[in-house]
Amino acid sequence: MKIVRFAHDGAEHWGFLEDDRVRALPNGPFGEVEPSPDSLPLDAVRLLAPVKPGKLVCVGLNYVLHARESGLALPDEPMLFMCSPQAIIGPGEAIILDSHEQRVEFEAELAIVIGKRARNVSAAEAASVVLGYTCANDVSNRDLQLKDKQFTRAKSFDTYKPIGPFIETDLNPESQTIRLLQNGVVRQDSTTADMIFPTSFIIEFVSSIMTLEPGDVIITGTPSGVGPMKSGDRIEIEISGIGKLENPVQ
Amino acid sequence: MKIVRFAHDGAEHWGFLEDDRVRALPNGPFGEVEPSPDSLPLDAVRLLAPVKPGKLVCVGLNYVLHARESGLALPDEPMLFMCSPQAIIGPGEAIILDSHEQRVEFEAELAIVIGKRARNVSAAEAASVVLGYTCANDVSNRDLQLKDKQFTRAKSFDTYKPIGPFIETDLNPESQTIRLLQNGVVRQDSTTADMIFPTSFIIEFVSSIMTLEPGDVIITGTPSGVGPMKSGDRIEIEISGIGKLENPVQ
Repeated sequence: MKIVRFAHDGAEHWGFLEDDRVRALPNGPFGEVEPSPDSLPLDAVRLLAPVKPGKLVCVGLNYVLHARESGLALPDEPMLFMCSPQAIIGPGEAIILDSHEQRVEFEAELAIVIGKRARNVSAAEAASVVLGYTCANDVSNRDLQLKDKQFTRAKSFDTYKPIGPFIETDLNPESQTIRLLQNGVVRQDSTTADMIFPTSFIIEFVSSIMTLEPGDVIITGTPSGVGPMKSGDRIEIEISGIGKLENPVQ
Repeated sequence: MKIVRFAHDGAEHWGFLEDDRVRALPNGPFGEVEPSPDSLPLDAVRLLAPVKPGKLVCVGLNYVLHARESGLALPDEPMLFMCSPQAIIGPGEAIILDSHEQRVEFEAELAIVIGKRARNVSAAEAASVVLGYTCANDVSNRDLQLKDKQFTRAKSFDTYKPIGPFIETDLNPESQTIRLLQNGVVRQDSTTADMIFPTSFIIEFVSSIMTLEPGDVIITGTPSGVGPMKSGDRIEIEISGIGKLENPVQ
């Protein structure tokens, strides 16, 4: 199932895709799902970020080749940080650069959307607390990231976390291609099989520290090929089995 | 006004203190406040963490003497990171150590509670977006903090962010004493006047990056004197004009 949030008639709704139509989920996608009897044409609604997370947990340095291109040793545990959930935007919304002099880079990532409250979940049980997966861009002001050491500021500017276009509930997260195109040119082209820590282990690790709540999002690191963006760029992130997230840059 | 959240009759409520009584605020403390006609004796209710923040933003290294005791240069900008809001606990609740072998330390801090949505607020206007101030303990697994470099894991274990006992809406945050007692012995004893970046500037800085929402909490760094805790300890944090936050350690 492809879960969406959409704007229609001046309100925001949960829903899911049925071919080229969208059917509302008035109770939301967590717990018992009760689809609305009616559906709308997809082109009559505006898709929003498919979730508004309570918290946005991020994993740094989780692909072998990206660790090598960064000149860093492979970590022995996931490196966690957190970003502002108010940085989230949806498909088609503009990434607004905080600086036109500093280096602001794209980072294609697979995002995990949590479906159930979770604490101390084993990797073997991790799938049971996942609602689904979506595409994310972990936009990063690299100059500030290097200056601050702590990654939060560089990656938390409003609009720096595009996600979407929908949450795919039926996906094997460990063997999907992940690609990023900048103005149609492929910049990142990898597979989630190159992750140092697979999503199931990430859920075990994060939930051994903090309680995860429905709607929380964990973004799982970026593969090699990151690079700078400039105003006027068009960034597309494609993950097989999910779809394509597209955002302009301002 | 001293704003509280409290448990009574199996539900959670907003309220405020009137001497030794508590009066409910059925609409909450944000926006138009409509006190309930009735009040309850304070000892008939259980105080909770005075807010459940959407996001919990933290400033590292913000007191001159603490920067010196850490052997670090004074920062030229606030060092930001974020912690899990699910780490928040209230007065009297136990801090549950994630490790009995590693060094887990207390850190007394002044917490800012945001009252209004805020983006790009100047220091001069900062007070207008603040609901009030409370006491916080930025409990930190120092071994993990040094290992990870990113501070999020070390400071985000569930129960690692006691706050309370209430939100004081009428406080000058720039000239209050801040003390921490461990089993009755004073360990930290300073003044918020020693902050490198005052609260008004912190609000300007954070809101230049991310939209702040009502209920968000910013903790503003700890003075010198941090030290390790062990199971059985009793930690008290006192900030003049606010009151005392007390938590046992398990």
